[in-house]
Amino acid sequence: MARTAIPSENLLAATRHPLLAGGKRLRPALVLETAALFRGQDPEYVQLTLSGALAVELIHTYSLVHDDLPSMDDDDLRRGQPTVHTVYGEAMGILVGDGLQTLAFEVLLSGPGSAERRSEAALVLARAAGLCGMVGGQVLDLEGEGHTPELGRVRAIHEKKTLALLEASVEIGAVLGGATDLQREALVRYGRAVGLAFQIVDDILDETATAEELGKSPGKDRSSGKLTWPACVGLEESQKEAMRLVQEAREALNPLHTMDLDPAFLQDLSFYIVDRRL
Amino acid sequence: MARTAIPSENLLAATRHPLLAGGKRLRPALVLETAALFRGQDPEYVQLTLSGALAVELIHTYSLVHDDLPSMDDDDLRRGQPTVHTVYGEAMGILVGDGLQTLAFEVLLSGPGSAERRSEAALVLARAAGLCGMVGGQVLDLEGEGHTPELGRVRAIHEKKTLALLEASVEIGAVLGGATDLQREALVRYGRAVGLAFQIVDDILDETATAEELGKSPGKDRSSGKLTWPACVGLEESQKEAMRLVQEAREALNPLHTMDLDPAFLQDLSFYIVDRRL
Repeated sequence: MARTAIPSENLLAATRHPLLAGGKRLRPALVLETAALFRGQDPEYVQLTLSGALAVELIHTYSLVHDDLPSMDDDDLRRGQPTVHTVYGEAMGILVGDGLQTLAFEVLLSGPGSAERRSEAALVLARAAGLCGMVGGQVLDLEGEGHTPELGRVRAIHEKKTLALLEASVEIGAVLGGATDLQREALVRYGRAVGLAFQIVDDILDETATAEELGKSPGKDRSSGKLTWPACVGLEESQKEAMRLVQEAREALNPLHTMDLDPAFLQDLSFYIVDRRL
Repeated sequence: MARTAIPSENLLAATRHPLLAGGKRLRPALVLETAALFRGQDPEYVQLTLSGALAVELIHTYSLVHDDLPSMDDDDLRRGQPTVHTVYGEAMGILVGDGLQTLAFEVLLSGPGSAERRSEAALVLARAAGLCGMVGGQVLDLEGEGHTPELGRVRAIHEKKTLALLEASVEIGAVLGGATDLQREALVRYGRAVGLAFQIVDDILDETATAEELGKSPGKDRSSGKLTWPACVGLEESQKEAMRLVQEAREALNPLHTMDLDPAFLQDLSFYIVDRRL
């Protein structure tokens, strides 16, 4: 193929910008730590799971770049840095997001090891990211702006927009690590509970944290009429629900103990998610 | 997973809009006809190649939806229909494109048959669509607007923006059909020549055809300062180069004859590509 191996300098810089802006790297951590439960079952384990970890962060980053665009949430600040479109223009913001999404699949599919596992992991990623998952959630989110806060609607938005990819990160770790169906199911239950807890805490922090802590503009949800968990039930009940979900996440991991697996890190991570201040 | 199986009605309608607007379906035809050369080698052949054909059309359609956005080429008309963003708004135009890209990988990866072939085909698709392929080409295209027409630059734009996906369509057909390395190489050479011929003819038609024939606004390339083949060498030389490339494409298929394969359809298709009037 006559194509050059690297994109133009400007595109490369614009693509690196959101990837190197930091962030918690929660999704790749979920992939790596879930796969680590099964360490040793696959000789090409490390490189394979790294490609999965990179893929979920690429999808997450693409979604942030597009969500921040002027015609979407119109944000100037992300992870404490100016957003891609404010630096490189709107067209480049769209194209960088497009390219990051493609790169996620390229990275995952070009990894080493079993084609079965790579292909299955990429399918889990596509289902979580697409029209019935993350993209569908962003549509519900935009359509919901200005509506009366109602928990059913907020749950539907959160489930698709945030939870789908968090749950998929755990599931991809399970697939790449070589989990049995039973182990995979338990881990997906964990991912679902942790994912919703994470988003509820995110909603809470948008009301209580400073811009410096958040790395983005606070109070933005409320001012733009976004539907959030606290807007439906208040801050205190939201905090309680997050704690309940963490308990649910921990219980979901119980079957793993009897399978000689040690999910200590995943348990600790669920506490970090509700305790985090930034 | 708690996600509903279908996206919101509005998103579904907006996603169907560009897919059902027609078009030549050249890319899926290339997948199907290339795979058809090897008919019978895979019992789940038809469904597998259909998923490949659908995937390339989904990627192509996503790229059109995004290219037409106000911050990109700002087009109101595509395939004789109003563009997605003019009907559903700019945010939805971005999200529909995003979802179509994801769906391409979902469709291809959830197909039947060999995980090896599906995974390999999806990787070919990702490489063609991404930062070093189609997305990179659109960046070069936007960056090139208003520059003095220069053949090297035009070739680089065309190779990435259009040719990459056309070539990949042939290669995906070869992979899904079960081609040998030698057969795959010959077919990729065909795809590359046919792809460039196609884009040169597209450039010519933009100057010579009517809006009704094109299904989009004619003369748009020239008025927006796009770098085209005729802008570099004139209409007559462009037509000659397209004819030369068709000859090159036909010659690339020669080795297949000696392998007991019959590429008659692909040969005819290369003629159609330069002869088409719409």
